[in-house]
This record gives sequence, C-alpha cells and structure tokens, in this order.
Amino acid sequence: MDDDSRTTRWERRTEVPLAVASMLFLTSYAIRVLAHGLPEFWRSACLAVTLGTWTLFALDYTVRWRLSGSGPRFVTAHWLDTVVLVLPLLRPLRVVKVYETVRRRRGGPRLALHARVITYAGLAVALLGFAGALAVYQQERGAPGATIRTFGDAVWWTCATLATVGYGDVAPVTAAGRVVAVGLMACGLALLGAVTGSFSSWLLQVFSSEEGGGANGKPPGG
Amino acid sequence: MDDDSRTTRWERRTEVPLAVASMLFLTSYAIRVLAHGLPEFWRSACLAVTLGTWTLFALDYTVRWRLSGSGPRFVTAHWLDTVVLVLPLLRPLRVVKVYETVRRRRGGPRLALHARVITYAGLAVALLGFAGALAVYQQERGAPGATIRTFGDAVWWTCATLATVGYGDVAPVTAAGRVVAVGLMACGLALLGAVTGSFSSWLLQVFSSEEGGGANGKPPGG
Amino acid sequence: MDDDSRTTRWERRTEVPLAVASMLFLTSYAIRVLAHGLPEFWRSACLAVTLGTWTLFALDYTVRWRLSGSGPRFVTAHWLDTVVLVLPLLRPLRVVKVYETVRRRRGGPRLALHARVITYAGLAVALLGFAGALAVYQQERGAPGATIRTFGDAVWWTCATLATVGYGDVAPVTAAGRVVAVGLMACGLALLGAVTGSFSSWLLQVFSSEEGGGANGKPPGG
Amino acid sequence: MDDDSRTTRWERRTEVPLAVASMLFLTSYAIRVLAHGLPEFWRSACLAVTLGTWTLFALDYTVRWRLSGSGPRFVTAHWLDTVVLVLPLLRPLRVVKVYETVRRRRGGPRLALHARVITYAGLAVALLGFAGALAVYQQERGAPGATIRTFGDAVWWTCATLATVGYGDVAPVTAAGRVVAVGLMACGLALLGAVTGSFSSWLLQVFSSEEGGGANGKPPGG
Repeated sequence: MDDDSRTTRWERRTEVPLAVASMLFLTSYAIRVLAHGLPEFWRSACLAVTLGTWTLFALDYTVRWRLSGSGPRFVTAHWLDTVVLVLPLLRPLRVVKVYETVRRRRGGPRLALHARVITYAGLAVALLGFAGALAVYQQERGAPGATIRTFGDAVWWTCATLATVGYGDVAPVTAAGRVVAVGLMACGLALLGAVTGSFSSWLLQVFSSEEGGGANGKPPGG
Repeated sequence: MDDDSRTTRWERRTEVPLAVASMLFLTSYAIRVLAHGLPEFWRSACLAVTLGTWTLFALDYTVRWRLSGSGPRFVTAHWLDTVVLVLPLLRPLRVVKVYETVRRRRGGPRLALHARVITYAGLAVALLGFAGALAVYQQERGAPGATIRTFGDAVWWTCATLATVGYGDVAPVTAAGRVVAVGLMACGLALLGAVTGSFSSWLLQVFSSEEGGGANGKPPGG
Repeated sequence: MDDDSRTTRWERRTEVPLAVASMLFLTSYAIRVLAHGLPEFWRSACLAVTLGTWTLFALDYTVRWRLSGSGPRFVTAHWLDTVVLVLPLLRPLRVVKVYETVRRRRGGPRLALHARVITYAGLAVALLGFAGALAVYQQERGAPGATIRTFGDAVWWTCATLATVGYGDVAPVTAAGRVVAVGLMACGLALLGAVTGSFSSWLLQVFSSEEGGGANGKPPGG
Repeated sequence: MDDDSRTTRWERRTEVPLAVASMLFLTSYAIRVLAHGLPEFWRSACLAVTLGTWTLFALDYTVRWRLSGSGPRFVTAHWLDTVVLVLPLLRPLRVVKVYETVRRRRGGPRLALHARVITYAGLAVALLGFAGALAVYQQERGAPGATIRTFGDAVWWTCATLATVGYGDVAPVTAAGRVVAVGLMACGLALLGAVTGSFSSWLLQVFSSEEGGGANGKPPGG
C-alpha cells in the first residue's frame, strides 16, 4: 500500500511503544471492572491509564493520516486501522503481522493462508470475547433481575454466544449489555464464516491437488 | 434482461417517487406500531399511508407487467420484483442497484462481488429485522404470558434470531408472532450462508491468486 | 447406474402406485396423531393403512433387489433407496426426479445445480420437519412436565431446531422425543450446509464467469 | 512423512495393543462415572486401568519421539499425535487410517475425500460427544441447582451443543462442567465447518464436472 518511507519509519519506531500501550489499555480496563474492593484512588488511576493509552492511539492515527497526505479517503483506505482506533483491544492482532515480517526477513516461508486466517480469527475472537465479557459484566452486575452475576457467568455467556449456541440460562437484561451482545453475535457469525470458509477452501485445494497427482492430505493447521 | 425502451423509461421516471413511497411505507407502519398514545385520527392516517403506498407498488408492478408484454411468465422471470411487491420493505435494496448504475456511468469500476453480496445481505437483514421486530412487537405486546413486552425486547430477540443464537429468554408466544419468527429464522440461515459463502469464496480466490504469483491478501470489505 | 431393462420397466410401472402409497402413509400417520377424538375403529384403520403402505415399500425394495441381482452390495449401492425404505416420508423427494425426467424428454434444459440442491433440501426439510413435529407431538403430549402441549408448539419447536436457533422455551422432555429431536438437529446441520454450500459455490461461479468476461450476476433461484 | 523404518516397525507392532488400550481407557472411565453402586474396590480398579492405559500412551509417544530423533520440533510436527496424547479418546480415529492402509494394500481405491472427511468428523464428534457427556455428568450430578441430573440429560445436552442449537433447558452450572462445555462448543463449530465445507466443495466439483461434460451427480456419501 503506502511504502512511503516516512510512514514506514514512523511505524517501525512506534511499534513497541504502541504494543505496550495496548497491553496497558486492556489490563487497566480489566482491573477497573474486576477489582471490586479497589480504593477510589486506584480506580481513578486505572481510568486515567485507559484514557491515556487511547489518546496515544488517536495521536498515532492522526500522525499517520498526516504523513500519508491522502485527505479524508485515509479513513476508508485504512479501514482496519480505523476499526483498531475505535476498538483498541484489536491492536494485539498486529502481533501476527510483526511475526510474519520477522519470519520473511529471515527467509522463512509465509504462513499458509488457512493457518493465517485461523490464527487471526482465533486471536480476534479471544480478545473481543474477553473485552465483551468485561463490558457485559460491568453493565449487568448491578442490574435488577440480572442473570449474569459473576465474571465467570459473563465468560460462559460469551462463549455460548460466540459459538452461536446461545443456551439462554444466563443472558443480558440491560440495554447497554444487549448492545454489546449484538456486537458479540456479529463476531460469532464472522467466526463461523471463517471456520467454515477455511475448511471448505482447504478441502477444495486438497481435492484439486489430489486430482493433479500429489496426494498430500495435510490438515489446515499442519 | 428487458432492455425494452418503454420499460427503461418507466423505471427511470418512477425511481424517485417509489423510493420516497417506500420510505413513507416503512415510516407510517413504524409510527402506527410504536406510537401508543397517538389519537385515533393519526393512527388511521398512518394506516391510510401504508395502504396507499402499497397500492402504488402494486400499480407500478402492473404497469411493468403490461409493458413487458410477456404474460404470466413475468411473475417468475421477475421474481425479485414479485418478492419486493409482497414485502415492500425490501424496496430500499434497489438503492444498491441505483448507486452502481450511477457509478458505472461515471466510468468507475463495479463493486467487488463480495462487497456487493455483503452490502445486499447487510441491508436486507437490517430492513427485514426492523420490520420483523415491528411485526412481532405488534402481535405480542398484548398477549397473555408474553415475554416480549417492549420494542427493545423485540429488537433484542430479532438480533438473537438472525444470528441463529436464540437465547430463548424472550420468545414469541402467539401464533402470528411465531409465523413472523419462522420467516426471520429463514433470513438468519440465508445471512449465515451469505457470510460463510463470501468468506469461503474470498479465501479460495486469494489462494489461487497467491499461487499464481501476486500475493494480494486484501480482506473482502477492503 | 442400472439401466437393466427389467428394473427400468418395474420402476416405470410402480411409480404412480408408490407415489399414492407414500401420500397415504403420511396422511394416515398424521390423522392418527392429530385427530384426538377419533373413534377406536378409525384409529385402527389409520394404523393399518400406515403399516400396509410401508409393507408395499418393503416389497418394492425386495423386488428391485432381486431384479438387480447384485447380492448384499445392493444395500450400500442404492443407499438412498435404503434410507427411503426406513424413512418412507422422504419418498416424495422422488417427485423432483420425475419432474426432471419429464422435462428432459421434452428437450428442456436440466434445472441448474443450485436450484436442484435448494429444491431437494427445501422439500426434504419440509417433509422431515412435518414428520418430526408429528412424532415429537405424539411422544410429548401426555408426558408429565412437558412444554410441548399442542401441535402448534411442536411445529414451532421444529422450526427453531431446523434453523439451529433453539430458543428452548419449549423442548422435549421424554427420551423418545429427544431421540427424534437429535435426528432433526442433524437435518438442521445438513440444511445449513446445503444453504451455505450453494451460496458459496454460486458466488465462486459468478466470480469466475465475471473474470472470464460475461457478467451475469443472476442469483441462485433466478 | 517419516518413512523411517524403525518408527514404522514400532508403529506396526504397537497398533493392536494400543487399540485395545484405548478401548480399555474409554470403558474404564465410563464405568467409573456411570456405575454409581459400584464397590470401592472396583472403582479404584477402574481408575487404575484409566491411568495405566494413559501411561501406555505416554510411553508410546516418548518412544516415537526418541526414534524420530527430531528434538522439540516433534511436538508441533506430530501435532495430531500430541492432541491424541492429551485426549486419548480420539485414538480410535486411527481406525480410519488402518482401514485405509489395509484397503490400499489390496489394491482397492482410496476413499473419496468427502467420505473421509465425513467419516473422520462423524467418528470424532461421536467419541468426543460421549466423553464430553461423561465428563459433564461427573461434574454436574452432585452440584446444587444442577439441571443435568441423569446421564440421559447429559447426552441430550451434548447433542444440542454439538449441533449449535443450544436449547438451554438443561445446562451446566459448575465451573468444571462449563469448561468441558466450551470444548464441546468448539467441536460443534468444527463439525459445522466440516459439514458445510464438504457440501460446498462437493457442489463445486459436481458443477465443474457437469460443465466439462460428464454429468455424474452422485452425492458425497455415494
């Protein structure tokens, strides 16, 4: 895409600080939600860290926008970055990209497409699921008539939602919790699509290579 | 299809009035269902608008049937128009078609197939979901033993149904509500098929292009 | 497959009687389950018709086995016929085959693959769903603590199961009802696979034909 | 893969004892969970057999690791064996491999890819489902407020989970039971992917062969 040297240099320099910041973001948010008995001072500190790291992400986004010099089209052209800005929990997804860059520099082969899709989908679902469970738990724990009362309940409910199983023994009752839930359902649909699509394209590939001659029936993650 | 000039001219002339009519249709139906405290006069006005706009759609369908001059086969040959006649809420789907026509005239490229499928599926599901939630809410709100008591409940239940999650914490209890629900389940299955199918065909495409040489791993919405 | 003239002649002769028999089979079973107030005589008559038509199916299967002269391998080679013998409700699926034979004789084109898959899947799911609802209702209606109390409940539950939504507001509680339910779940999975697979292969086809040159974006049912 | 003669010889010699051991493993675990009134002596015997057979699997894994002489990379290169070591219930999956080896020696053709995928998926899901039902039942039967009270309930719940239907009329309430449940949900997603993927690739194959000329519309299991 933009092999502009200034953008590349900026990205190389900010890689490590931003990875640390995204870890801090997730940790501070989790502490704020999960540690009930925390004194008010530490709770405020967590909030400050959360907001501070998010400001860093916004700054990074602005700088790269300026460097690209491409005006309002930047938002749609770098839609993945825009999504990451709004949902900073997805930032660790960049780890896969970094790992691949390192690997290619050493002359190693690229990860197979299926392995990459499954790695991305697995990581994204794990991170979004954790964040979704946190957010739903924060909304539901004090609500009257709530069935999600512990963080364990929230995680259990998140797993049932992402797998599109949906037992309904626990379910959000507040409006905010249900909005988060709809987001998680969309993730579940996408996860299902990724799993099914990978399987289907892998089968087709194996089949055509079997027909061609070499019969290498290695499964997708092999 | 039918590049007959009279049909084309008719379609160009009715495009804008019918788009306005379909917006009126949806709005008047929503107002009638959602505004409880509305005086009887306004409720009747809403009903009149709903029926009036639907009559417009029926008229447009009849005129195009006549212009095509193809007898009873028109119903199956233009099955999408027939579906739109019965479910006028799907009419806004034509927006995608109009947008594409405009774009091609300006020499811009067609939307990628995956982008189109996802845009159509997303729009159709949003419109059908909204209409389904309205219809279920209308049937359920007065029923004894109903669990869907507010419009928020109806929207929440619709989302859980379309994602095939189905918690069951709220569910329709009347016969009419359940018939609408079965229609929404069919939409959910189709949505799942669209998401999964797009993913799978996108993966296969990327794979074959990677094997060919160029390694452009852009995701479907890119 | 077996273009042996005796088998073909047998099949042509038995086509109509067996189609009538399968309709009788389904109707008599439905009457026995649904008509509560039926006098004992008519109930026994229905049972006799059900068993009698099934005996006809078994006879037809045996005759065709003999005519084929292929020993025990017939069971696996004609697995679809074996399945139809055990689940005679699937016999109406043959209607699609008959319709196609007629069409080809008249020189008409074959139905498109997607149209055929969707027609078969739709018919099979409708028939199995109806039979499953009947069977579950028969098991559940007298059970203590049952939530499926009317045939409407059974149909509603069947739809939710086939779409893999599974609200759980009504669910079978008897062992026999749950065995039927597991069969319906398997049908639901297969239906999902058929819908998704058709969509995915249709998308890939359209894509390759678009790349080739002709841009005919007709949807599967068109 | 590793056609090293020592490894091959080891595998040929241990094939039968390990198959017997895996049957013993599953049987002793099932007896321990299901036979409530068993005297303490027999319960301990079952536990001993379970642990003993697992030690055999670990020994076999170690020996093959040594014979391969490939260091720590063995764990990822033979990831299927590693998974089987941790979940010995999957060992019977090897039966498919053994059956195919025998068939090929006799000059018979390989099973079609779809038949193999469906056989593997079906066997794996049946074994994992049975083991999952046992494990969940063991965790839940004594828990306060549990809805899974009999082994029949556990099997019913497992089927609803694997089909991603998830009624929620019975659902695990203990933390350990829910962890097993999440594993079963992942199996359900994979099963859905396998069913859908097989269907989709089979459709594409049939389509391309129909276009090519020969119209052989045999279904996947034919």
